[in-house]
Amino acid sequence: MILVKLGGGATLNLAGAADDLAALGQPCVVVHGANALRDELAAKLGVERRTLISVSGISSVYTDDDALDVMLMAYSGLRNKRLVELLQTRGANAVGLSGLDGRIVQGRRNRGIRVRDGEKQRMVHDVSGKPHSAGPLLGILLEHGYLPVLTMPISDENGHAINAENDDVVAVLAETLKPDCVVHLIEAPGFLADPADPASLIREIPRAEFERREAATEGRMKRKMMAIRRLFDGGAREVRIADGRTEHPLRDALAGAGTVIR
Amino acid sequence: MILVKLGGGATLNLAGAADDLAALGQPCVVVHGANALRDELAAKLGVERRTLISVSGISSVYTDDDALDVMLMAYSGLRNKRLVELLQTRGANAVGLSGLDGRIVQGRRNRGIRVRDGEKQRMVHDVSGKPHSAGPLLGILLEHGYLPVLTMPISDENGHAINAENDDVVAVLAETLKPDCVVHLIEAPGFLADPADPASLIREIPRAEFERREAATEGRMKRKMMAIRRLFDGGAREVRIADGRTEHPLRDALAGAGTVIR
Repeated sequence: MILVKLGGGATLNLAGAADDLAALGQPCVVVHGANALRDELAAKLGVERRTLISVSGISSVYTDDDALDVMLMAYSGLRNKRLVELLQTRGANAVGLSGLDGRIVQGRRNRGIRVRDGEKQRMVHDVSGKPHSAGPLLGILLEHGYLPVLTMPISDENGHAINAENDDVVAVLAETLKPDCVVHLIEAPGFLADPADPASLIREIPRAEFERREAATEGRMKRKMMAIRRLFDGGAREVRIADGRTEHPLRDALAGAGTVIR
Repeated sequence: MILVKLGGGATLNLAGAADDLAALGQPCVVVHGANALRDELAAKLGVERRTLISVSGISSVYTDDDALDVMLMAYSGLRNKRLVELLQTRGANAVGLSGLDGRIVQGRRNRGIRVRDGEKQRMVHDVSGKPHSAGPLLGILLEHGYLPVLTMPISDENGHAINAENDDVVAVLAETLKPDCVVHLIEAPGFLADPADPASLIREIPRAEFERREAATEGRMKRKMMAIRRLFDGGAREVRIADGRTEHPLRDALAGAGTVIR
């Protein structure tokens, strides 16, 4: 089976990805974001978007109850159901779910994020956390021929809805589902040696080299690379990072476009 | 098993209903609305809400693509996931879905609604329709001990998301699931002889009398009564209509509060 992550950027070709998913001919689970849609909706509703930078330099979205409401509308509502519709109209029997549903993705709520406040440090608490395990529902759906389409939120230890990083969710699902291949469709041609230069695409990265690159990375990209390493730590053999903006993003990725890490 | 419809009004006690659902001790499917939330969100986003009155006097919401987007956010997103959260935090393994997911509720798109336009009549087309059958996914979920929590939209004949009346969805599900009892939790003490007088609650309506009352009813209420009759036509033995605003709305309804039709 294949595990596909669709980024949440505004320029991803969702209809093209749906074409490819419907023609895939093998079991698949989709995990999607909706950050561009979320930001647009938050702006319309006047809900402020806040980003935190932890003392260790990792950036993350600060999620209070209002921000989570916006997320439920943008991720679990609008994007999830419109994506299910794209798949259903192409004959794929998609089922849209959040990680909270049936506790598909179980996490632990963050005990607080330590941030700098001028010269001092302080703890900030929000409704976010880290996923650590997956329930059996995706397996049940796959067994019956459905195409699960998963998004935020996930469940904390008490069944509350919390935000998490989609990359971490993909890592947890990969550990459970043991996919043959994990494909990340993003708004870039793949992994770039120079993020500012689309022509600097790296076609293949051996695992050992990936770890060296990870150590040299900082900020939000570091978090993404940690999540990719976690895929390998969990037993993944192959991760593909490819352009989600082409006419056939998934078909191209499986045919060798973008970056293959193995 | 029990089929529970939670109305979409602003004053329904969802936490109390979740308490009762978690303590129910038998299989259950929940269908919920979110019309108050939808109207609130539509107003915030500046999406106009339009109602049509057909030439036969039946009123319905006019749903264009923008209105359906708002619906996806309010029904499938915010209300559905917050309700799943209320249930999960109480230990019920709820799974939130729309009728589009896995084509749980399959419908036929309306060919147009005939409305009066001054002296003339004209056809109006929107993205709404009538449900006619239910797919197997709810049965699979019940079999595995999950509590399905279902809402709008449903699927049309081509897999497109369309709006439908929740009462019609409940009727279609009742035909498939054959529940022992269908409970409607609403913002009134039950079926009232005089809609303006909460003290005019009718405690029990025999089926024959119900059909006589239906014939004498007009407007939106007629549609609701047609849907209730359809429950009986489909084989339901008992329908309870009770107050969803009490501390324990479902427990009270099953204990005899509100109106019992049988």
